[in-house]
Amino acid sequence: MPSMRSEVPPFEVMTVLDRVARLRASGRDVISLCAGEPAGGAPSDVNRAAAELHAAGTPFGYTPALGIAPLREALAGHYRRWYGLDVDPRRFAITTGSSGGFLLAFLAAFDHGDAVALARPGYPAYRNILSSLGCRVVDLDCGPEVRFQPTVEQVAAEHARSPLRGLILASPANPTGTMVTRDELAALTAWCAEHDVLLVSDEIYHGVTYAGSRGVSALEFGDGALVVSSFSKYWGMTGWRLGWLVLPPGLVEAVDALAGNLALCPPAPAQHAALEAFTQASYAECDAALEGFAEARRLLLGAHDRLGWGVAAPADGAFYYYADLGPQLDRYADSSAYAAALLDATGVALTPGTDFDAANGHRTVRISFAAGPGAIAEAIERILDFQG
Amino acid sequence: MPSMRSEVPPFEVMTVLDRVARLRASGRDVISLCAGEPAGGAPSDVNRAAAELHAAGTPFGYTPALGIAPLREALAGHYRRWYGLDVDPRRFAITTGSSGGFLLAFLAAFDHGDAVALARPGYPAYRNILSSLGCRVVDLDCGPEVRFQPTVEQVAAEHARSPLRGLILASPANPTGTMVTRDELAALTAWCAEHDVLLVSDEIYHGVTYAGSRGVSALEFGDGALVVSSFSKYWGMTGWRLGWLVLPPGLVEAVDALAGNLALCPPAPAQHAALEAFTQASYAECDAALEGFAEARRLLLGAHDRLGWGVAAPADGAFYYYADLGPQLDRYADSSAYAAALLDATGVALTPGTDFDAANGHRTVRISFAAGPGAIAEAIERILDFQG
Repeated sequence: MPSMRSEVPPFEVMTVLDRVARLRASGRDVISLCAGEPAGGAPSDVNRAAAELHAAGTPFGYTPALGIAPLREALAGHYRRWYGLDVDPRRFAITTGSSGGFLLAFLAAFDHGDAVALARPGYPAYRNILSSLGCRVVDLDCGPEVRFQPTVEQVAAEHARSPLRGLILASPANPTGTMVTRDELAALTAWCAEHDVLLVSDEIYHGVTYAGSRGVSALEFGDGALVVSSFSKYWGMTGWRLGWLVLPPGLVEAVDALAGNLALCPPAPAQHAALEAFTQASYAECDAALEGFAEARRLLLGAHDRLGWGVAAPADGAFYYYADLGPQLDRYADSSAYAAALLDATGVALTPGTDFDAANGHRTVRISFAAGPGAIAEAIERILDFQG
Repeated sequence: MPSMRSEVPPFEVMTVLDRVARLRASGRDVISLCAGEPAGGAPSDVNRAAAELHAAGTPFGYTPALGIAPLREALAGHYRRWYGLDVDPRRFAITTGSSGGFLLAFLAAFDHGDAVALARPGYPAYRNILSSLGCRVVDLDCGPEVRFQPTVEQVAAEHARSPLRGLILASPANPTGTMVTRDELAALTAWCAEHDVLLVSDEIYHGVTYAGSRGVSALEFGDGALVVSSFSKYWGMTGWRLGWLVLPPGLVEAVDALAGNLALCPPAPAQHAALEAFTQASYAECDAALEGFAEARRLLLGAHDRLGWGVAAPADGAFYYYADLGPQLDRYADSSAYAAALLDATGVALTPGTDFDAANGHRTVRISFAAGPGAIAEAIERILDFQG
């Protein structure tokens, strides 16, 4: 009875989260390091605005399909602030999370049967959305030797084999946290422009970085790329479901028409409250939360030798530590068995790498350190005890 | 550069709403009777809950992909209350508006190339979502002679010509407001079950009815139909983007997997606040708002002769008056020209029927009376003045 195209694997993180919820309901003390969501929630100014709007009984009707004009203008201001770029506010599409953005972007840009390349390991929903929409997913094998990010050489080789219509690039990436350099991004953007391949640049972890830069935007190299971003990560608003696209001018009309039909509009209360995400105080709060992630990251990187695992990806940004389990795989069949045993014995929930990498994920786990240094310090001790 | 499948017509209501926004920004006094959204907004209990949650700085993280368990249980309670049905809470999928629900339902149940039948006139987004997903849309010509609703005979005839995979039925329907009787719904449900055609029953206007019954649910005739519904209409929460599906047991797993990938989860603040939609006070407030729609409806039906238009659909439910413009079409090229001239001259915004009916919509307009009796009374006067 279900369609063939609905046969996408469930997103394992969601499954593990369900198990975490059940364990917690049964009274277990669980440290969940599964989900990529900051524990602190939205900036105070955003919460305050939402509280005031609802307290006043504001009726929230439909907004324009691409979002309210003031929020699109505020985003243009954000791009001036962070990237020094002047982007026409009409190129912003506010979406229902970056998930809603990916869906609209893929529908607007890719037809049934089109080939779209992406890195493996990578965010599983890219692959699953694309395949449910009938696109052909082309894996780029991105291991430690290419710092877990696609290179122009890889993309060009795939394109020569069978023409690509799109390339998805995420920097910082999920699950690895690795970032491409400015030069690499410039080269990939230029190659895509030359070969009429749409670069979909996932920049949702911008701002959650540990080396000075907020992240380099593909928009710094022209208007051809389609940028996907979100209020979920830097602003800590995962559950609000608010994201955005920055569209190449040629796709604005198509995305507008699709959005009006598929979604009507993104959540209105969140749009109005998110206007307060760009205050001095909000940026300051988000940057303060970042210090917590940075401290948690230092703890994890510092524990690498004691954990005795294998290669870990360079966690340049995001809040993920993605590592090969190394010698632990002598004792457990695979990373899923390891993670299940760990959760059972210690209440520490990790995500097995199978979610992100069908080829090598049986060897790896992803730890989200968005929960902060306290949770990470405790989790490290429990893991060390567990491994004995 | 846009994909072929993104070539869906924009949803005209959204376009007209944009024009309304621009006119208002320029200082014009506009009566917008375009959008199907109650002016009063959410029930007070829902607003209060949202205000309190945000005032407390609640961090809203991801929820389970199909929504929080208490809301699924509350919906099961609602089905006991309104329909006397016991539905397993696990069959409810909370979605990002009914739009998000339709998308998940269509992906989960229909493959690329599958034929899905629906009434013409009908809600344009059905058609546009289906066609963007590669389904073949089969029009059922539903005029006044069949009370604007599909009959078993029509569906069977189309199925004999070329097998259908699905049938979409909306009762009350948009744009006509007409409802199928209990017997008709029973017959359609039985026919679909016999012929392995999925009945997608759009029940989003249930509760917004004018003849006693809240609406008959397809679930009253078995578990085979897929029901789509929403907090948007009866509860007045359009902009919150919160709806739900009631799934046949065989589709729960597929929808869960798709939802986790395509949407992650529906908006979390809305889910938590919506728990208060089922209080005595909330039902009472919604029923009171309904009295306003009923009064506005009486005014419109009473003005039918003075307006001098043609056939109007029986407005059994929803808040739409869908009518042929009759003799007015001697003066204007089509309903779009009439609507544009009316908006220009009087500030009254209607939706031309072309949005809902590619064959006959050039003759019709839809008036939403969700704006209430005051707006409708004034609009009628302006229209009569305009027509001279």
